[in-house]
Amino acid sequence: MILVFKANATKEDVANAEVRLRGIGLEPHTLVGVERTVIAAIGDERKTSPEQLSSFSGVENVLPILAPYKLASKELSATTSVFEIGGALSPAGNDSTAVSFGGNKIPFIAGPCSVEGRSQILEIAHAVKEAGATALRAGAFKPRTSPYQFQGLAEEGLQYLAEARAATGLPIVTEVLTPADVPLVAKYADCLQIGTRNMQNFLLLKACGTVKTPVLLKRGMSATLEEYLLAAEYILTGGNKRVMLCERGIRTFESYVRNTFALAIVPALKEKTHLPVLADPSHGTGVRSLVPAMTKASIACGADGILIEVHPNPEKALTDGAQSLSVKDFAKLIKECRAIAEAVGRTV
Amino acid sequence: MILVFKANATKEDVANAEVRLRGIGLEPHTLVGVERTVIAAIGDERKTSPEQLSSFSGVENVLPILAPYKLASKELSATTSVFEIGGALSPAGNDSTAVSFGGNKIPFIAGPCSVEGRSQILEIAHAVKEAGATALRAGAFKPRTSPYQFQGLAEEGLQYLAEARAATGLPIVTEVLTPADVPLVAKYADCLQIGTRNMQNFLLLKACGTVKTPVLLKRGMSATLEEYLLAAEYILTGGNKRVMLCERGIRTFESYVRNTFALAIVPALKEKTHLPVLADPSHGTGVRSLVPAMTKASIACGADGILIEVHPNPEKALTDGAQSLSVKDFAKLIKECRAIAEAVGRTV
Amino acid sequence: MILVFKANATKEDVANAEVRLRGIGLEPHTLVGVERTVIAAIGDERKTSPEQLSSFSGVENVLPILAPYKLASKELSATTSVFEIGGALSPAGNDSTAVSFGGNKIPFIAGPCSVEGRSQILEIAHAVKEAGATALRAGAFKPRTSPYQFQGLAEEGLQYLAEARAATGLPIVTEVLTPADVPLVAKYADCLQIGTRNMQNFLLLKACGTVKTPVLLKRGMSATLEEYLLAAEYILTGGNKRVMLCERGIRTFESYVRNTFALAIVPALKEKTHLPVLADPSHGTGVRSLVPAMTKASIACGADGILIEVHPNPEKALTDGAQSLSVKDFAKLIKECRAIAEAVGRTV
Amino acid sequence: MILVFKANATKEDVANAEVRLRGIGLEPHTLVGVERTVIAAIGDERKTSPEQLSSFSGVENVLPILAPYKLASKELSATTSVFEIGGALSPAGNDSTAVSFGGNKIPFIAGPCSVEGRSQILEIAHAVKEAGATALRAGAFKPRTSPYQFQGLAEEGLQYLAEARAATGLPIVTEVLTPADVPLVAKYADCLQIGTRNMQNFLLLKACGTVKTPVLLKRGMSATLEEYLLAAEYILTGGNKRVMLCERGIRTFESYVRNTFALAIVPALKEKTHLPVLADPSHGTGVRSLVPAMTKASIACGADGILIEVHPNPEKALTDGAQSLSVKDFAKLIKECRAIAEAVGRTV
Repeated sequence: MILVFKANATKEDVANAEVRLRGIGLEPHTLVGVERTVIAAIGDERKTSPEQLSSFSGVENVLPILAPYKLASKELSATTSVFEIGGALSPAGNDSTAVSFGGNKIPFIAGPCSVEGRSQILEIAHAVKEAGATALRAGAFKPRTSPYQFQGLAEEGLQYLAEARAATGLPIVTEVLTPADVPLVAKYADCLQIGTRNMQNFLLLKACGTVKTPVLLKRGMSATLEEYLLAAEYILTGGNKRVMLCERGIRTFESYVRNTFALAIVPALKEKTHLPVLADPSHGTGVRSLVPAMTKASIACGADGILIEVHPNPEKALTDGAQSLSVKDFAKLIKECRAIAEAVGRTV
Repeated sequence: MILVFKANATKEDVANAEVRLRGIGLEPHTLVGVERTVIAAIGDERKTSPEQLSSFSGVENVLPILAPYKLASKELSATTSVFEIGGALSPAGNDSTAVSFGGNKIPFIAGPCSVEGRSQILEIAHAVKEAGATALRAGAFKPRTSPYQFQGLAEEGLQYLAEARAATGLPIVTEVLTPADVPLVAKYADCLQIGTRNMQNFLLLKACGTVKTPVLLKRGMSATLEEYLLAAEYILTGGNKRVMLCERGIRTFESYVRNTFALAIVPALKEKTHLPVLADPSHGTGVRSLVPAMTKASIACGADGILIEVHPNPEKALTDGAQSLSVKDFAKLIKECRAIAEAVGRTV
Repeated sequence: MILVFKANATKEDVANAEVRLRGIGLEPHTLVGVERTVIAAIGDERKTSPEQLSSFSGVENVLPILAPYKLASKELSATTSVFEIGGALSPAGNDSTAVSFGGNKIPFIAGPCSVEGRSQILEIAHAVKEAGATALRAGAFKPRTSPYQFQGLAEEGLQYLAEARAATGLPIVTEVLTPADVPLVAKYADCLQIGTRNMQNFLLLKACGTVKTPVLLKRGMSATLEEYLLAAEYILTGGNKRVMLCERGIRTFESYVRNTFALAIVPALKEKTHLPVLADPSHGTGVRSLVPAMTKASIACGADGILIEVHPNPEKALTDGAQSLSVKDFAKLIKECRAIAEAVGRTV
Repeated sequence: MILVFKANATKEDVANAEVRLRGIGLEPHTLVGVERTVIAAIGDERKTSPEQLSSFSGVENVLPILAPYKLASKELSATTSVFEIGGALSPAGNDSTAVSFGGNKIPFIAGPCSVEGRSQILEIAHAVKEAGATALRAGAFKPRTSPYQFQGLAEEGLQYLAEARAATGLPIVTEVLTPADVPLVAKYADCLQIGTRNMQNFLLLKACGTVKTPVLLKRGMSATLEEYLLAAEYILTGGNKRVMLCERGIRTFESYVRNTFALAIVPALKEKTHLPVLADPSHGTGVRSLVPAMTKASIACGADGILIEVHPNPEKALTDGAQSLSVKDFAKLIKECRAIAEAVGRTV
């Protein structure tokens, strides 16, 4: 940590800080400048935080030297982690075809926002598979802004998803909302999705850290890069190493979109972490007509996978119809993406 | 709902939308303008959402007419709801003095960020009471950004809080993080706090809607006014009528503060809802030296209560030391606030 | 315009609004619902504004139906406008090779942030041309955050730019800061750049509307899509039809980048306007290592051109070194972009 | 400056940085930690910038030690600067009553958004004076988002303002949009206003630095605290010492207001600068009904003056009617503010 003292800080303030820093295992190096005194405190600064040190008397500002995350860090593993979801060894059963994330091939996880019924999810599962998707997404537990909106089919929805997997071989990615539901959802899902509103639901992160099911952790809509990697760190410290990240848009002043798709975080995360980084252009924009262009942009800037909403009849979708592609448009898009993937040395 | 069609929308698009609107119980009034066709769909639009209707073919934009919340609305009750926390009938026990929220008097809920130990919380409880606080706040379950940081004392912390209540008569306000913990926390707390990261933890909101303990619902750090009132609506629809709101800062580009204290939401909420509206200048700024001025501003603009961090030794606090007032500074502040409260026709 | 009245609005409020709307040439259609009265006011709403109408008594909310811009609108011209900068007819002279914007080929406008001296700009001009750039960018008038920073070489810088054009044939794109400088800069430049801080410098926009030099109008760092197109409208109404837009990052809470590169505005603008839309990944991220990935993303999502900072020795650049590519990296990037451009049916 | 090196930085990177730092007059102190090397570079860092140093090879992050502004700094003058606008020595003439800013009394600068005509401005000048305002505000040059909106009466408006001053003795605060207009506006105005869109119009700042008329510099809608003080520094370095600051709302995701009124910047600025700090609750919220509460909050948190929009007939205002108070509401507000001012030891 770097501690910058106020112009009017006293020698006692500085001496006091030196004692305290040693007390928490950091070695202070004090530099007296013309205008300011600065202490560079060297050591394992993850034991403390800038907030804690900035309450020292006379301190104006505290600046961390190290990233606060470890297991998620690129320094742990210089290359992108590669792992599978689904397949013969999936905790949820052996009736799906494994999909590899973090490798050269860029998987598309496609499907409707919500499981609305048995026939709907079976229809869409067959359709997205035919179009080229390699995993199926759909929510059985839905976090909805209003209590008056459709809240999902719960376990019934999970059962339909399992049927869709059996019928198509597509592994299932579906959201879990609360720690108590983790065992239930893990019974059916090949990958647990943690949604944007739960990125800092730390008990849910911990609960997902103790299971064997891979986790797709979506970025919080106002999360910094560092907060995001610390959320992943919660899962990793629990022992679950199969964590994927996914940019899905942040909240800004922009109003022509539902969210601002902050795609630069894809290459930025890939500099900092070994975890695969996906992109979700459906939520990232919230506007159907912008999804194809932003899917291509996602692949061009290095995304390791695409999460995308597809609905057989977007006009009738109970949720998120405005951002869902039709099956036909999805099939067209996935074809167009092949050349982009090739252009960056990958495949779809 | 108002549906604005694209310039190139067809008559079929418009006719199709009319049929669908009737199908969901809204009566369409179609207006054909020179440049655009517009349908005003009159009826209970809470059954649908702008997102759903904007997926209709040919529709460019959908604008809601009504607020999507009901029970939280000022239209339900034109005056601020007044209710007590603590006191003889508190679900957590009868050893505290009731504090009324929503009335003329502006209560101060003060205390440390975290319960750090038995003596710490007893000391601070006595101190804030003496200074003028009427309720005690402190966290036993802490949502921390990093898994390597202090996570709270859990039930042990709740027990210390109960001791502090018995010793001082101050009702206890403390955070609950997950639905499964609601019964446990409600056993000890006079008021359940839902933190900023959980404002859209809908299962937690529902769980808090089914207990008899009042709820302090903090604003999400990127929540709109409407999303905030819909989160309150989740609790209200469960049957729990004692919900308080609290502005605690939003996330913006500003970096001289930890959050941007968006105080105008206090009078704005008071126009829209009958629920009491508090302010938390400690998290609202994150900077100790700004807390006194912003506490005064909170009272001046109409806050119904103040939530504030006070620590006997902010430099040694395990969490949030940088934004905690010393007991001495808190006692001084509460005195200075009396005149501000009087100036707006209230008392502290 | 749609006027939504408050629940407690009176019949007089509604009648009064009807009279006033007719007074400004809008025809009111009044719809009385169960909970709210709504007036849809049909006609040329550009004569007024939602702000003005929302001051009517009893009105809760006013929602525009039409986009407030006309000349910039796609409704004026359904296809992207194609025009040249530089070439034999350039107002600044006939010694450059014309570059076409808005067509199939995606031009790269490359160069240093600032003109730092004669040899620097000549060296870089030759280098970027060889690497594949088709226009040269560099600032002679620099808008700098601090008065203690390098402010640019002014007319001397423009003269060096003209020399660089003569030597390489690359047309010159350079910034103009104030209306009084428009004639001077237009004497040397083939394209006037209006920077992000001046996007709403309306007198500068008007001044650029009256010259024959094309204009590259960068997006304001907190501009909405609508404000951006209205800024372009200022130039267009002056008679200058050759306006290009350029996304360059917006200001958000993100701190790992200098700006949040809001790329979805590229396809969104192309739905709304016929003006060519460029992207500037250098300012859009502010981080050199992210520039290549985000340049590819820009092309993949439909950008009509790329504005990029290249410096022969980024470590020694007087301004913006941290986001400038070396010549070698730029040459590599432009090669890699060819396949991306092809994948979206275009060329570099 | 503090330079933090990447984990994989080489000894050459560090040695190279040391040489360069000495070359720009900073003395490097190098600290080799277990995970990272850090250089603390001591000296006058205002000659360089974090951006410049972060382009050094191997450097991950650069953190400034000193504030980049000097003349605006509290270190130059520990107490708030007090100065007058208007009065016998005003550059614009001797027919107004001087108003002191920065002292114990909190002046109200009130008036309409725009000068709409002679009788309008005379009427409102008399009315706001009677209600208690001590200066008159109104725009003759209006920066309007759309070219189709009313652009102001220009010099004719300034003449009416001068008449209003002669009639009431109220000093005039009015906006100047461009450097070329500074002499003209200074001929009529007692205080030049620089609007939010021009906060980083550096040539305008410089032009206002060379005149004798005081300047009211409004905060840019996406300006950081540091950028804001650097903008003031531009004026101060020109020799004009009479600069006032004014918070007027920032752009965030909030949509129930036109801007987010970030009032904590008032006490924060007063910690950093000796310049008087005002608040503008009219633009700060954009919603008339919120203006009274937020005016009180502004005074409670330490504002040195209030800028407020008042219109004789807000419904008919050509600009900003939705946020203007009626004369009657303004008179009521100013009375209510007396007690708030007293509560913080000041007067209105």
